Amino acid sequence: MLYIIGLGLGDEKDITYKGLEAVKKANRVYLEEYTSILTVGKRALEAFYERDDLIVADRELVEQGDEILRDADCADVALLVVGDPFGATTHTDLALRAKKAGIRCQIIHNASIMNAIGCTGLQLYSFGETVSIPFWTETWQPDSFYDKIIGNLSRGLHTLCLLDIKVKEPTLESLVKKKREYEPPRFMTVNQAASQLLQIIQRKESSQLSPEKCLSADSICIAVCRVGSSDQKMTSTTLQKVTALEMGPPLHSLVIAGTLHPLEEEYISEFSL
Amino acid sequence: MLYIIGLGLGDEKDITYKGLEAVKKANRVYLEEYTSILTVGKRALEAFYERDDLIVADRELVEQGDEILRDADCADVALLVVGDPFGATTHTDLALRAKKAGIRCQIIHNASIMNAIGCTGLQLYSFGETVSIPFWTETWQPDSFYDKIIGNLSRGLHTLCLLDIKVKEPTLESLVKKKREYEPPRFMTVNQAASQLLQIIQRKESSQLSPEKCLSADSICIAVCRVGSSDQKMTSTTLQKVTALEMGPPLHSLVIAGTLHPLEEEYISEFSL
Repeated sequence: MLYIIGLGLGDEKDITYKGLEAVKKANRVYLEEYTSILTVGKRALEAFYERDDLIVADRELVEQGDEILRDADCADVALLVVGDPFGATTHTDLALRAKKAGIRCQIIHNASIMNAIGCTGLQLYSFGETVSIPFWTETWQPDSFYDKIIGNLSRGLHTLCLLDIKVKEPTLESLVKKKREYEPPRFMTVNQAASQLLQIIQRKESSQLSPEKCLSADSICIAVCRVGSSDQKMTSTTLQKVTALEMGPPLHSLVIAGTLHPLEEEYISEFSL
Repeated sequence: MLYIIGLGLGDEKDITYKGLEAVKKANRVYLEEYTSILTVGKRALEAFYERDDLIVADRELVEQGDEILRDADCADVALLVVGDPFGATTHTDLALRAKKAGIRCQIIHNASIMNAIGCTGLQLYSFGETVSIPFWTETWQPDSFYDKIIGNLSRGLHTLCLLDIKVKEPTLESLVKKKREYEPPRFMTVNQAASQLLQIIQRKESSQLSPEKCLSADSICIAVCRVGSSDQKMTSTTLQKVTALEMGPPLHSLVIAGTLHPLEEEYISEFSL
């Protein structure tokens, strides 16, 4: 049996009881550490599970899949995923490959940012499409997420912006040399996300295209960090002011508010800047 | 301290370890049973928690709030909610009232249908706005959810349709007599939801307004039931054919597929009718 187990958000105690039972009895346990992170690392998980043999699974190992699925028809193999198992395409793909290989697969769900963002007091059914904001480079500055945000705003809907994570990215040098060397991990802050959004708005203003009036430096945003952990923080303010917020360590996420219901307005005013 | 604890979907073992610790030490524990249900009832939860004093909280008790918040500044009070705490407005409101009364409040997140619907293999970031489909009566047949589905489809997005639940609804007789009597609980099936949608499409066809071509009897849907439990079931088929599916006991949900990515298409073909 292959178990794909969500760890939720926060720390080692956010696993479900059902998930913990599966981890304890599994023959092999892999920990996926490249699509998200908890506030604690492998050692804290090992101590809590009372086993010292967690195998860290990088993108290559999960996407290639053979190692994880090995003997899973007769042994119990668990893959631990921060958040919910089906938050990332790569785990859906693994579940599909297990099925095709005749391996039974049990999904153990948990909270992910996609539903825990309800902690802002904004109602989940008033969110439109979720967007991802990637790190820009000097020569690569995609902005397709802008149109999606505008699409949501024009219908009065909130937007959850997931911010880029770069974990175990090969260095440029290592790509050339075919030698395995990795960049230090990077996690986009709400400051960087807001700054990229403001640059897009400015570009639209200075080009022939006038920007959609519904997103501006004055738009109401909610900056959140470390959702589900004991030092979770939320601040509601304008997009402009998000650029200067001090939110602390990762992970950060940004919500762009659509039309606010009075209860939502009251809730976010409790943590306005 | 007020703990609002998500129970996840499924059974008693879907609570998180953190949630279980809070339940065990709480002075009073309320179980909210009107916005959703697990596959097990109060007795199974009590046996698992090793305490026999769970208090069932109906809508009135939660919305009124005073009883739950009583002494919560010096005692530990837990409110158990199926899914994630912030799935329903009523819990957001309770958290806000606790805050205003100076009562500390800890949210313990868990899976809800809003993220667990990823089990269909459809990617969560390709979902638009979630809609609720209410039970129709002879004289009350709202259809605003139709426009939201069309809005999503026109942007290639999937729609999660949450189906109506009627728990502890006063009988018409009891409203007149001011005597407390309740209707038996009702849970909308995917069949009823699909049938209501088909009726809306037919009405649009027979009226001056031609229906949006993007939703029809042939649209691809995924019917799901008891997500997260051991007898979870998923079937992908057309909207027309959903009307005749046998999905078994509640809860049911319906997904209307937008533009399918090849991986999504492959995944749902594994459980097509």
